[in-house]
Amino acid sequence: MSQIKKLSAGVTRTDKAMSDGRTIRYYDTDGASRDAVDQRQKEDQPTIGELRFDSLVNEWVAMAPHRQTRVFLPPKELCPLCPTVGESLTEIPEPRYNVAVFDNRSPSLRPPESGWELPKTQGPQTSTAPAAGVCEVVCYTSDHGKSFKDLSPAQVRTVLEAWRDRTAEISKLDFIEIIFPFENRGEEVGVTLSHPHGQIYAYSYLPPRAEKMLESAQAHKKATGRVLFDDLLAREIKDELRIVAQNAHWVAFVPYAARYPFEIHVAPRNPVPDLAALGEEACDAFPSIALEVLNRLEGVFNIPMAYIASWHQAPVKHDRDIMRLHWEITSVRRAPGKLKYLAGSESSMGAFIMDMRPEQSADQLRNVVLGK
Amino acid sequence: MSQIKKLSAGVTRTDKAMSDGRTIRYYDTDGASRDAVDQRQKEDQPTIGELRFDSLVNEWVAMAPHRQTRVFLPPKELCPLCPTVGESLTEIPEPRYNVAVFDNRSPSLRPPESGWELPKTQGPQTSTAPAAGVCEVVCYTSDHGKSFKDLSPAQVRTVLEAWRDRTAEISKLDFIEIIFPFENRGEEVGVTLSHPHGQIYAYSYLPPRAEKMLESAQAHKKATGRVLFDDLLAREIKDELRIVAQNAHWVAFVPYAARYPFEIHVAPRNPVPDLAALGEEACDAFPSIALEVLNRLEGVFNIPMAYIASWHQAPVKHDRDIMRLHWEITSVRRAPGKLKYLAGSESSMGAFIMDMRPEQSADQLRNVVLGK
Repeated sequence: MSQIKKLSAGVTRTDKAMSDGRTIRYYDTDGASRDAVDQRQKEDQPTIGELRFDSLVNEWVAMAPHRQTRVFLPPKELCPLCPTVGESLTEIPEPRYNVAVFDNRSPSLRPPESGWELPKTQGPQTSTAPAAGVCEVVCYTSDHGKSFKDLSPAQVRTVLEAWRDRTAEISKLDFIEIIFPFENRGEEVGVTLSHPHGQIYAYSYLPPRAEKMLESAQAHKKATGRVLFDDLLAREIKDELRIVAQNAHWVAFVPYAARYPFEIHVAPRNPVPDLAALGEEACDAFPSIALEVLNRLEGVFNIPMAYIASWHQAPVKHDRDIMRLHWEITSVRRAPGKLKYLAGSESSMGAFIMDMRPEQSADQLRNVVLGK
Repeated sequence: MSQIKKLSAGVTRTDKAMSDGRTIRYYDTDGASRDAVDQRQKEDQPTIGELRFDSLVNEWVAMAPHRQTRVFLPPKELCPLCPTVGESLTEIPEPRYNVAVFDNRSPSLRPPESGWELPKTQGPQTSTAPAAGVCEVVCYTSDHGKSFKDLSPAQVRTVLEAWRDRTAEISKLDFIEIIFPFENRGEEVGVTLSHPHGQIYAYSYLPPRAEKMLESAQAHKKATGRVLFDDLLAREIKDELRIVAQNAHWVAFVPYAARYPFEIHVAPRNPVPDLAALGEEACDAFPSIALEVLNRLEGVFNIPMAYIASWHQAPVKHDRDIMRLHWEITSVRRAPGKLKYLAGSESSMGAFIMDMRPEQSADQLRNVVLGK
């Protein structure tokens, strides 16, 4: 039995069970009926991994040894994210789809048995815990050869609706602390499947960088009574020289203290804690700026650009008044044939050295002549 | 005029001026006389970069735009770290050398004009500052085709003496906060020169990861009265199952919460704040364990292994009683043909997902049969 749910912007969601018990969700705007059945053999789900506390720096590290055997850059005809055609049984039973989101087959984090609680952290004595969380795969289109930047505005709107729906639904799980939709693009950043897709990681603990954002926001609130991200956005709008694109609802800029050769932050003018809280008009204005930004990035060198695109959202249960939704796109490509590597200073010390001024990077992005 | 200074273990240091005003220091055990003169044209030194405060996470980011044009994987005959032979004028004027350390030609950080002070941090209002610090290049051997693991124990002892000497001397500079000797090895981690060498970055600010180590150490001291790293080392010795190598003065282990497929920490049994404070016996016992560890790492897949080797030391001016010297070697190689990438979760959230249990990694390292 399919469940059909109506979302915004005419998007419907249809849920189907996969043969191994996972769920796939189809997001459609054309009222397509989703009846195809997963014909694959049942297989055992991997067991849950382990969280270990690295007390040297007070951070959780997730251990997911079952991921060692995951699929690695398969040829196109074996792509598990393509629709199922004939005998090629993929993750997606339907013969075509618009946007589909399914539970990751090799999840780094997965829902725990009931009664789960994050252990109290207390230095080296901190006990281990099951690596609780949710990992989902977001397929942007059934067209294997496309990239996010090639989607139509309507398709981006459907992807946004899927992200919003997943954020709203995963937020209800009591073991979730924060939800992180992201995309890794390009073999340079370790992508193992080239089909256009992103992922959602929902963590049961506050990851280190989110924790630092929260601490900074709390300190700023205490010192000034204001919301840190709002002040940062106001500075970017006032400085103007690092702005890359904007419309009535969104601003895209290279941040003042960018740490990658190309780094673009995209923020709604009307601040919200997460994707689910975005207003209808902001949602409708998102596809144009998203596509402009990604096409400017691609246009800098006119080669496929590796990037990581990350949605930062407020934690699910607390500090939602001081943490703001924004999208960070970072690229390690500093020239055709040259990448920025996170080596000794960045990787071991966390000290970023930027070879390019953010203003120069913003200039290059603005100067791209967009097609069409 | 050369200045000659006597160090431990029969090592002497001879300083020479380079044509552009930088300094090169030769470390020898054979009383070699270092008279060769840098014949190259004088050239202007790059200007100092800029520190910008990323108030979103309260971290300094260094901007060094002059580094864009640095030398990138030159052919062997143009290697700037080889000795000068005939017309090929390199960074090292002598026709052969043991260990040489010189000021980096494209430094990310450099000594400031007098009167420098790190600005008070206060959110988005924090002012910029000159990117003060010291960047040096440490050439391990004049033999272009070798790697650290191929050095003789005597040569490693001389490298160690050079690190110790640089740490002691740079510590005296009033604008230095912490000193970080490290090696990036392999194109996979962005090495731009394949000649066996490491670097020293001395920062005028506490880098984010060092700051987290310090905060954890302070919290542990307050909670227990003990030194965090000593407790962590004691656990590794007690647990035993992650120990990779040891001798009377050093212990090498895969840490309990390792975040890379291969990660080895090497610590002196007798805790010290930094390299300069190491006792004579610990120094003499270092080459054997260093070579064993790096050869085990190389032996896992019998292919050249990309790694980052990082010396973590106490800050120069404070908390020297609770921060401990240790050497962290991390490799992103998870299999021949497969790397671990720091993608969305690691890069944007700081949340590491480890595909291999640290105990399995330690097993693989221990099972390597060493040659000779």
